[in-house]
Amino acid sequence: MTDDRHERGRARFLEVHDEKALSAVEGLGDLGRTIIEFIYGDVYERPALSIRDRELSAVVALVALGRSSQIPQHMRASLKAGLTPDELREAILQTATIAGFPVAMNAMSTLKNVLAESERQP
Amino acid sequence: MTDDRHERGRARFLEVHDEKALSAVEGLGDLGRTIIEFIYGDVYERPALSIRDRELSAVVALVALGRSSQIPQHMRASLKAGLTPDELREAILQTATIAGFPVAMNAMSTLKNVLAESERQP
Amino acid sequence: MTDDRHERGRARFLEVHDEKALSAVEGLGDLGRTIIEFIYGDVYERPALSIRDRELSAVVALVALGRSSQIPQHMRASLKAGLTPDELREAILQTATIAGFPVAMNAMSTLKNVLAESERQP
Amino acid sequence: MTDDRHERGRARFLEVHDEKALSAVEGLGDLGRTIIEFIYGDVYERPALSIRDRELSAVVALVALGRSSQIPQHMRASLKAGLTPDELREAILQTATIAGFPVAMNAMSTLKNVLAESERQP
Amino acid sequence: MTDDRHERGRARFLEVHDEKALSAVEGLGDLGRTIIEFIYGDVYERPALSIRDRELSAVVALVALGRSSQIPQHMRASLKAGLTPDELREAILQTATIAGFPVAMNAMSTLKNVLAESERQP
Amino acid sequence: MTDDRHERGRARFLEVHDEKALSAVEGLGDLGRTIIEFIYGDVYERPALSIRDRELSAVVALVALGRSSQIPQHMRASLKAGLTPDELREAILQTATIAGFPVAMNAMSTLKNVLAESERQP
Repeated sequence: MTDDRHERGRARFLEVHDEKALSAVEGLGDLGRTIIEFIYGDVYERPALSIRDRELSAVVALVALGRSSQIPQHMRASLKAGLTPDELREAILQTATIAGFPVAMNAMSTLKNVLAESERQP
Repeated sequence: MTDDRHERGRARFLEVHDEKALSAVEGLGDLGRTIIEFIYGDVYERPALSIRDRELSAVVALVALGRSSQIPQHMRASLKAGLTPDELREAILQTATIAGFPVAMNAMSTLKNVLAESERQP
Repeated sequence: MTDDRHERGRARFLEVHDEKALSAVEGLGDLGRTIIEFIYGDVYERPALSIRDRELSAVVALVALGRSSQIPQHMRASLKAGLTPDELREAILQTATIAGFPVAMNAMSTLKNVLAESERQP
Repeated sequence: MTDDRHERGRARFLEVHDEKALSAVEGLGDLGRTIIEFIYGDVYERPALSIRDRELSAVVALVALGRSSQIPQHMRASLKAGLTPDELREAILQTATIAGFPVAMNAMSTLKNVLAESERQP
Repeated sequence: MTDDRHERGRARFLEVHDEKALSAVEGLGDLGRTIIEFIYGDVYERPALSIRDRELSAVVALVALGRSSQIPQHMRASLKAGLTPDELREAILQTATIAGFPVAMNAMSTLKNVLAESERQP
Repeated sequence: MTDDRHERGRARFLEVHDEKALSAVEGLGDLGRTIIEFIYGDVYERPALSIRDRELSAVVALVALGRSSQIPQHMRASLKAGLTPDELREAILQTATIAGFPVAMNAMSTLKNVLAESERQP
């Protein structure tokens, strides 16, 4: 039954992110397993919020808290879920008013790198 | 010209929030004036993000940072901008995974109060 | 099977906290259910850390982050799990060096109230 | 010798704050003693920064971190150390750009109360 | 008229920081433009707080929040605005009491680098 | 007498950490001296909390606040004080529920590196 949660979480994780991100999370042992089962198997499965809105929320929360390590992965997931680069830029500017400009400056630099990297790929 | 920014900000503020919230902000002197002119006259005027997405972002950022004083006002604005109570509940649960459960617990109590209060009004 | 998680989480929650705290969490709807199933049914069940060490960790994390609403409940749970008032006082002083004195001052006032309240009860 | 630190800290504390604030800190037991000896007996004694600049720094750090319980006391100490109400208002507005507007809004309301209270006193 | 704000902000930015810092901010698109117009064109223009006090406040707020990317730039601006290395060292030590020693340790290492770098330049 | 505090703090620091860590702290000038005298000479000397519990608390507080620079040093000190790798892993997972998963993901990667490094040494 936990195996069901795990399979469901793994499938959802791959839909939102990709294989490379999954390997990184699986490298974190029981914490990684918990992320897959709880966040992607339980929370992301709930229909009350679209994946697009979940990813907008994830980027905003990470930017507000200055959690720089996880921001690129959720920016990539946001673009995959249908947010445009302009919407992400604007969400960062909006978040500057609530969390201050320094976290927004860092996030905007990160977004430039994420967009440049995605353009280099076919 | 600053008067234009001020008028534009005031009109947008009233569209997003209401008269009562405007009075509270105007009671903050130059800081209040700056909020109206900069946040509502400049930032909220930009078309790149819908008011609905701005308010979802505002609630998520406030919840993530535990800024309890401003959460009720932006929950009310979220509902006015078209977010459903279920979407707000789910955005709070999602934010628990990024910012921890304590801030989400407080936000969920606040949302219950905001929804109860809005039901009491005609 | 989720029912098993829920029952297990409920039992563990009551062991760590009490009925009154359970009612408060259950009043939070799906977020409350998630707290019971995930935090108490999954995480607190893991044998790698004692309940005493979990509660010391919970108090320290809450104090460091200034999450005042949840601190009294976990102080009570810490005392129930075998931490002494002196250990809690010292953990707060220790946390002042990492998170600053203001959060420690608030936590020390809260601990005084929690201890006074527990002395008033038979 | 620790008695010297304590006496020195107590004298400095009373110079910066007042008797009422001293009682509150002394009510915190060993944490209060540590605050008096370390912060006021050691740190505030150092000549490299004026008390006026220390209090400006204290208010800004407390506002940035949203530590609302300690803000009024250090606003009063700032005024006593020679900062004007206008300088404090402006420091709060400045801090909004780094820490976001919500913490600044709360601080500005608090300053209004602190100023009103000091006007009521002869 | 926005062009006026922009020119005024650009001139003030160059007075506080330098050409290299301006290029970095201008590389952030609309967010950079907002920083120049709002923070330097509007806020830093206000006479109620000296540039020296603004920069002391900026360093303290950035240190308290652990916003490491922006700290070196504002340390350089602080020195340019007349703060001495000893005043900056002391403001960092003072901030340790409010925000904890870890952020102060990082800031002190950064200050050492900023001072070493400024000595290497003619 | 301050010399006594300093000697006592230095001895305790070396017991908790090691020579290399001491050099790093001593490189921070008066801030480093304050850390040795106040944190290790005053606070860590107090018998009310074991070094093992102090280090568990230190790791949890640093993880909760995302203070990445100081985490490896206190993870090493935790292992030296008798905490097992499994207890540290579990404390990190537990802290994810209070401070969110991103800080826990970073801490778990750091712990992997700390453990790998300690295995490479005889």
